[in-house]
Amino acid sequence: MTPNRRFLQTVIEQVQPPHEDAMRAARARQDRLTKPTGSLGVLEDLSVRLAGITGQALPEVDPPHIFIFAADHGVARSRGVSAYPPEVTAQMALNFARGGAVINCLARSIGAQLTVVDIGILGELPPETPVLSRKVRAGTADWTQGPAMSQDEALAALRVGVETFLSAKRPGLALIGEMGIGNTSTAVALTAALLDLPFEALVGRGTGVDDQGLARKHEAIEAGLARHQRSADPLHTLADLGGLEIAGMAGAMLAAGATRVPVVLDGLISTCAAQIACALCPALRHSLIAGHRSTEPAHTLLLNSLGLTPLLDLHLRLGEASGAALAASIVRASAAVLREVATFDEAQVSNKGQPDLKPG
Amino acid sequence: MTPNRRFLQTVIEQVQPPHEDAMRAARARQDRLTKPTGSLGVLEDLSVRLAGITGQALPEVDPPHIFIFAADHGVARSRGVSAYPPEVTAQMALNFARGGAVINCLARSIGAQLTVVDIGILGELPPETPVLSRKVRAGTADWTQGPAMSQDEALAALRVGVETFLSAKRPGLALIGEMGIGNTSTAVALTAALLDLPFEALVGRGTGVDDQGLARKHEAIEAGLARHQRSADPLHTLADLGGLEIAGMAGAMLAAGATRVPVVLDGLISTCAAQIACALCPALRHSLIAGHRSTEPAHTLLLNSLGLTPLLDLHLRLGEASGAALAASIVRASAAVLREVATFDEAQVSNKGQPDLKPG
Repeated sequence: MTPNRRFLQTVIEQVQPPHEDAMRAARARQDRLTKPTGSLGVLEDLSVRLAGITGQALPEVDPPHIFIFAADHGVARSRGVSAYPPEVTAQMALNFARGGAVINCLARSIGAQLTVVDIGILGELPPETPVLSRKVRAGTADWTQGPAMSQDEALAALRVGVETFLSAKRPGLALIGEMGIGNTSTAVALTAALLDLPFEALVGRGTGVDDQGLARKHEAIEAGLARHQRSADPLHTLADLGGLEIAGMAGAMLAAGATRVPVVLDGLISTCAAQIACALCPALRHSLIAGHRSTEPAHTLLLNSLGLTPLLDLHLRLGEASGAALAASIVRASAAVLREVATFDEAQVSNKGQPDLKPG
Repeated sequence: MTPNRRFLQTVIEQVQPPHEDAMRAARARQDRLTKPTGSLGVLEDLSVRLAGITGQALPEVDPPHIFIFAADHGVARSRGVSAYPPEVTAQMALNFARGGAVINCLARSIGAQLTVVDIGILGELPPETPVLSRKVRAGTADWTQGPAMSQDEALAALRVGVETFLSAKRPGLALIGEMGIGNTSTAVALTAALLDLPFEALVGRGTGVDDQGLARKHEAIEAGLARHQRSADPLHTLADLGGLEIAGMAGAMLAAGATRVPVVLDGLISTCAAQIACALCPALRHSLIAGHRSTEPAHTLLLNSLGLTPLLDLHLRLGEASGAALAASIVRASAAVLREVATFDEAQVSNKGQPDLKPG
């Protein structure tokens, strides 16, 4: 066992099951709040899940912290699978650093800290850019021609994800997203391989390829899946088909699970990372909250495979943790209601089937 | 024309159509932001709609203000249509005043001011309760036996809604909700009458009636609809079937439209008020944003009739503006993205089909 594999194993062993006592206490309080039982719909079960994840009967999910892992994909340059040139990965990392991107705006709106990690961008960012420099390699190799990376590089990228998460101040909520031109192709190839599904129905337009781009995407994914043997080992599949940022996200999710921090997933790429993380460590699943349902067809299949129902369905397809950041308000509201709302006894409000109380 | 009718007419005449110039400018900027066009899905069109409502190319929707209109329903006492006794309307108004209810928690989470209006609660609240006292009458009459209120009482309640809204500091966003034991029955009867639909498929469990309560609800609504002739005049229908709080909400919505403040609707009752307000003033419709889809079947029919697609679908059925408050985060994010995110030019990011720019 290599040092990186041993490191990962240690993290996996720390991921814990739901805290049953906290869930019971949360459910009991939820049912005594001054509102009809069930009237807050999805928010009620979510608050109980948050208790199970955090181990707190009154879960505290503040502050949120957004982690964005950025990396390039060999397949983007060689196969033209994206509407944008690969340079945009670095340009957008700079945009994040300068505060001009959608995720900066959404981070401000929810008071979240934002950490951007260069885990495999092509080329170098200008020195002193406030982007964490943890490049495992300068982009993956083209997975239509050979493995995207070596197994140890995949493990190293997972480790970067774990270490990035653990070196931040422990947040109340982890929102985990990405930037990587070409990564919907990688995620679709991974999804087809991991779920053993035909890829044709999984391919979407990503950030908006035209019909020719879509045809190139189909051809590339078909070639990639033909090039690599299916493997029951998720590390093998991850190394074959890549995504340095996908590996990083999976590592960060495992570290969140190991420290009882709830994770809000973003779109296709983030949920693909969750699928890999759960394949490595099934106990992680209960710590994951699906932020939204994107327009990418593969996303819905991954959500179904993980048994997750998304909070939002706003036809988003941006990535960069934007859907997770939008969903964070719902997650926080769910925890706040459980903590702050008065019970029937405290407020002297008549509950169903109880004797009437006069106001005042 | 009575003074209250004249007052209402003046407000209706001030409701304005969408501001086309602001919408054009908003759309043009939206398409230059550093993200693929369309990738923020529903949030993009919403930001353009906000520009049209407010008349601002960069719409400002802060601060939000929550208005809750509270009133009782004669039908609740005489027909037992709710899972809760009528006293709970007053008890919950006190709970709002003391800060212990769900909406207080959600108001804090979005930094919204909260105004609670007694527009027709049975009995008196203790003096000095911070609830605006604008009682038109102490609850409606039982609409299975006669009109819920007179036409001038309906107009007076609409006026209270207008005046409540206009006497508050002009907000950026108006979230309009209610409290009134029995009001899902009233809203279903109104919906059937206004949309000329058979009522049977519209009846839901409200805050959670059991099977016997549901049967009583069916019988009461059937009796109410049989008791009153259908009328093409929404004021007539409103007076017959009531809802003092429904009239108040409709008035507040008209006042918001007249002052170019976007309105976020809550559930069935709030959307029923919107249906009445739009029947009185079709130009109001563009100012309305559907916050969520509740579990009440009549709600979806009202949303369809108004041509509105809800932002959230979280199986809520609480009322008290809770769904509107949860949706407010999405509305604000949509406006913030349009205002704050850098354009491709500003950020030196390559757009689709444009020559590549090197990072840095």
